[in-house]
Amino acid sequence: MAAPCREIAQHPERVFAHTNKGNFVAIVSDGTRVLGLGDIGPHAALPVMEGKAVLFKYLGGVDAFPICLGTKNPEDIIQACKWLAPTFGAINLEDIAKPKCFTILERLRAELEIPVWHDDQQGTAAVTLAGLLNALKVVGKTKAEVRIALIGAGAANLAVSRVLIAVGIPAGNLLMVDTQGILHRERKDLHTPDNAVKWHLCEISNRAQKKGRIAEALRGADVCIALSQSGPAVIKPEWVAAMAKGAIVFACANPVPEIWPWEAREAGARVVATGRSDFPNQVNNSLGFPAIFRGVLDVAARTITDEMCIAAAEEIAACAAEKGLSEEYILPRMDEWEVIPREAAAVGRKAIEQGVARIVMTADELRIKAAKIIKKAREETAVLMAAGIIPAPA
Amino acid sequence: MAAPCREIAQHPERVFAHTNKGNFVAIVSDGTRVLGLGDIGPHAALPVMEGKAVLFKYLGGVDAFPICLGTKNPEDIIQACKWLAPTFGAINLEDIAKPKCFTILERLRAELEIPVWHDDQQGTAAVTLAGLLNALKVVGKTKAEVRIALIGAGAANLAVSRVLIAVGIPAGNLLMVDTQGILHRERKDLHTPDNAVKWHLCEISNRAQKKGRIAEALRGADVCIALSQSGPAVIKPEWVAAMAKGAIVFACANPVPEIWPWEAREAGARVVATGRSDFPNQVNNSLGFPAIFRGVLDVAARTITDEMCIAAAEEIAACAAEKGLSEEYILPRMDEWEVIPREAAAVGRKAIEQGVARIVMTADELRIKAAKIIKKAREETAVLMAAGIIPAPA
Repeated sequence: MAAPCREIAQHPERVFAHTNKGNFVAIVSDGTRVLGLGDIGPHAALPVMEGKAVLFKYLGGVDAFPICLGTKNPEDIIQACKWLAPTFGAINLEDIAKPKCFTILERLRAELEIPVWHDDQQGTAAVTLAGLLNALKVVGKTKAEVRIALIGAGAANLAVSRVLIAVGIPAGNLLMVDTQGILHRERKDLHTPDNAVKWHLCEISNRAQKKGRIAEALRGADVCIALSQSGPAVIKPEWVAAMAKGAIVFACANPVPEIWPWEAREAGARVVATGRSDFPNQVNNSLGFPAIFRGVLDVAARTITDEMCIAAAEEIAACAAEKGLSEEYILPRMDEWEVIPREAAAVGRKAIEQGVARIVMTADELRIKAAKIIKKAREETAVLMAAGIIPAPA
Repeated sequence: MAAPCREIAQHPERVFAHTNKGNFVAIVSDGTRVLGLGDIGPHAALPVMEGKAVLFKYLGGVDAFPICLGTKNPEDIIQACKWLAPTFGAINLEDIAKPKCFTILERLRAELEIPVWHDDQQGTAAVTLAGLLNALKVVGKTKAEVRIALIGAGAANLAVSRVLIAVGIPAGNLLMVDTQGILHRERKDLHTPDNAVKWHLCEISNRAQKKGRIAEALRGADVCIALSQSGPAVIKPEWVAAMAKGAIVFACANPVPEIWPWEAREAGARVVATGRSDFPNQVNNSLGFPAIFRGVLDVAARTITDEMCIAAAEEIAACAAEKGLSEEYILPRMDEWEVIPREAAAVGRKAIEQGVARIVMTADELRIKAAKIIKKAREETAVLMAAGIIPAPA
């Protein structure tokens, strides 16, 4: 037992060879923004983190462990993650309220030597981008020309706006709507440190400096990306009817979307996506994080960059595109599991290209490695289920 | 998914019903006192914590997770454990240097609503006590009369001295030897806050106020309990020869005991125990912690008291005694797995009796519950090994 310890003490990087650190992920939450339930605390958040750990393992072969912290203070959460870092290959922040989730993510990304990820930000952004890239192909529009209305100004849509700009959508073509209406330069209420990210968008988005609420934001828009928590009937059919021809509507609130897909279609939208598995075009974070972490861990990456998220989004989009896109098929379904190793390989290669990987492999090697690990995780589940050790799904 | 979260938010104690908290144990270390290697840091300590987690699962059905912290500061370690507490049913401190391990354990026991345990203290004490109780039966001596020399004044022997006194061995009959010799009231070097625990022993032990070193400590003693890290040949055969008739020698340094068992026997010792599995009478912590945690978790205990450790020790001793004690059989062997559910039940019952349990069950129910969980853990291992998912032991 002393031999591997001694070796790691002398050559710290060998911790990846001699322990499971390289496949351990901490799912860290303070329970302040859980599902639609708000601040329910660390104990009540635990079922969600356990569920997430199952998805990590079954879809990505990742050994994730829930860590629900007994503190809500952002500095404490940062400190806790730093103390936990030696054990883990990466940290997944989950269900932490904004604006502290921004600071925590930013600080930890800068200060830790392992990747830190907030699924509500980067995860949602990656999968939303994948869907949007294909939806634009379906309606025959280009990134440079589309005008996009973002409904909801939570952590998710703020991250979406960042990657949209990063992939070449002009910032001026974006409009964001929060509970007080469209973001523009006269929104004095956003001149506070807590609203720094939103204020930045006031400055760079909304070229026409439109004012008003959702109705005005959607008028003439090509794309609506609704990632709100506001419950049902947030978006009225007549507002969708006033969008540009060939409109794309992402209505991702769960379980009740901001507008029902049939209403949006009847009002003229050509492509409609939701967060639900019982409608076409599910925008599901599970298409993102398990594969992205698989790729990140397989190259022992030091960080997850926005470019790595974008590489994941492009690979997700490519997988669906190869099968033939349609108005009802812009994203792979969860049973198309070949997506995951391909996405992992794309993320791993981007990490290598950006010089943030500790391990270098070809794309083929990465894909094969990821597929092997995921296959083993699925076999493990199957074997344990067959033996009655874990229950079969209901 | 929202239903269990909502329920726990309203009734916090239901976290035990709806999540795995009640079976999660954090194995927390700062890597400052790992095996015989000393302060090798959190990364290098990880293999030991992973190994411990395997023992927890295989022997006790406990889902333990290694947490190697990136800090050595005692206040930080206390803070980290408090932040981690919502996720776990208990905390196992491991390989933390003294004297901070005492403060950390004491503070966390007082301040947390889940059990906190330092295996190097309570775990070693429980198993050592079990062996000693049976060894005394073999040589026909009573607790009230034996004079015991404790060689080594580390966390382990200091905890041993505490439980020996708790089970009725007169404190004045104990002698402890540290690197500077026997503890007595003129040991001015021990008048420092860091040595508070040792100084307390100077005051209450060593009725005759003996001075000197190991040779003097052993002269006339009935029992020698050596829990040192000093390497081989710490105890000379002639010193054992000068012990009382029917001497008991526990030489537990690993891998090289303070005196080889055949040397001790030749010098006149009647019962000799070591930490090694290849000699009779192995004093193995694995006889303790997996079962003790099983019992603690099955009643969702709020703490682990010394009385619960003693109950465990007495049950371990009873299991061996029922099979027939001899000079070469004072402790169960690791393959006598019926010990574990019995021990778990004894610990659980003591917790209930002391009013520190959240769940109340009879001893029979506890034994059956523990046996079922452990059986499942062993089946899980067997099934995964048969399927080639985890490797067979070498």
